[in-house]
Amino acid sequence: MDASGFVIDSKLAETSYPLVSLSVCDVRLVDDTRWPWLILIPRVNHAVELIDLPPDIRVQVWQEIDHVSRVLRDNLSPDKLNTAALGNQVRQLHIHVIGRYTDDPAWPMPVWGAGDAIPYDSDALASRLHTLRAALG
Amino acid sequence: MDASGFVIDSKLAETSYPLVSLSVCDVRLVDDTRWPWLILIPRVNHAVELIDLPPDIRVQVWQEIDHVSRVLRDNLSPDKLNTAALGNQVRQLHIHVIGRYTDDPAWPMPVWGAGDAIPYDSDALASRLHTLRAALG
Repeated sequence: MDASGFVIDSKLAETSYPLVSLSVCDVRLVDDTRWPWLILIPRVNHAVELIDLPPDIRVQVWQEIDHVSRVLRDNLSPDKLNTAALGNQVRQLHIHVIGRYTDDPAWPMPVWGAGDAIPYDSDALASRLHTLRAALG
Repeated sequence: MDASGFVIDSKLAETSYPLVSLSVCDVRLVDDTRWPWLILIPRVNHAVELIDLPPDIRVQVWQEIDHVSRVLRDNLSPDKLNTAALGNQVRQLHIHVIGRYTDDPAWPMPVWGAGDAIPYDSDALASRLHTLRAALG
C-alpha cells in the first residue's frame, strides 16, 4: 500500500520491479529478459477497464502510455511496440507496453503464454532499471 | 482506397466487415463468432505506431477506442474488454477491441493464435452488423 492507500495486485508485484511513479501510473519492469516489457498501473483502487476511469485520469493514462512507449523505443530500439490492456488473469487495470524484435522468441505472436520468462540476473537488472529510470524521469 | 486515398491492408479487409467510419477511424467487425471482435483503423496512410500519429489525431483515436469499447460492452455484455495495438503480423496501425467471456474458448488467454476463426453465417452477421452500426452511430 502506498501513502494514498493504493495496493498493487500481488501477482503483478511479484513478477515485476518498480521503475517510477508518474502522475497517475506506477511503471514497472516485468522480470523477463526475452523482451523489454513495461506495465503501467493506474493508482486507482478497483479500476478494471480503461473506460471506467474518471475522464481526467483516463486522459492522463493515455499520455503516460505515450511517454512510456517513446522512452522504450528511444532507448531500446524495438522493431515494433505492442500495447495492450487485457486483464484476463489479473483483474487490476494494467497496461502492457512491450518492445518486440523480429528475432525474439515469440515473434510474430504475442508474448502472453509464450513459454517461460527468463529472469534478469542482478547486473542486467541494475543496468536496465538505471537506464529506464533515468529516461522515464 | 477511399476518397482521401486511404487503403486498408488487404489482410485486415479480407478477415473483417466494415461497420462505420468515425471521424478518424474505420471500425470493422472481425469475422469470428467466438468473441465480438472489433478493430479500429485510423485513416492515416503508413501509420504503424500510435505514438507516431499527429497529436490531435492520436487524441481522437483514443476517444474512438473509448466509444467503441462502451458500445461493445453496453450491447454485448462481455466479462472483460481486451484492448490492444500489436501489429506484428499486419503492420498497418489497427487497434483491437475484443469482448471476452469467462466461458469463451480461449479464456483466460488472449485470442491471437487461439485456434481457427468460426465465421458468421449470413443471418448472424446481418444481425450483429445491424446492432453494432446502430449503436456506433
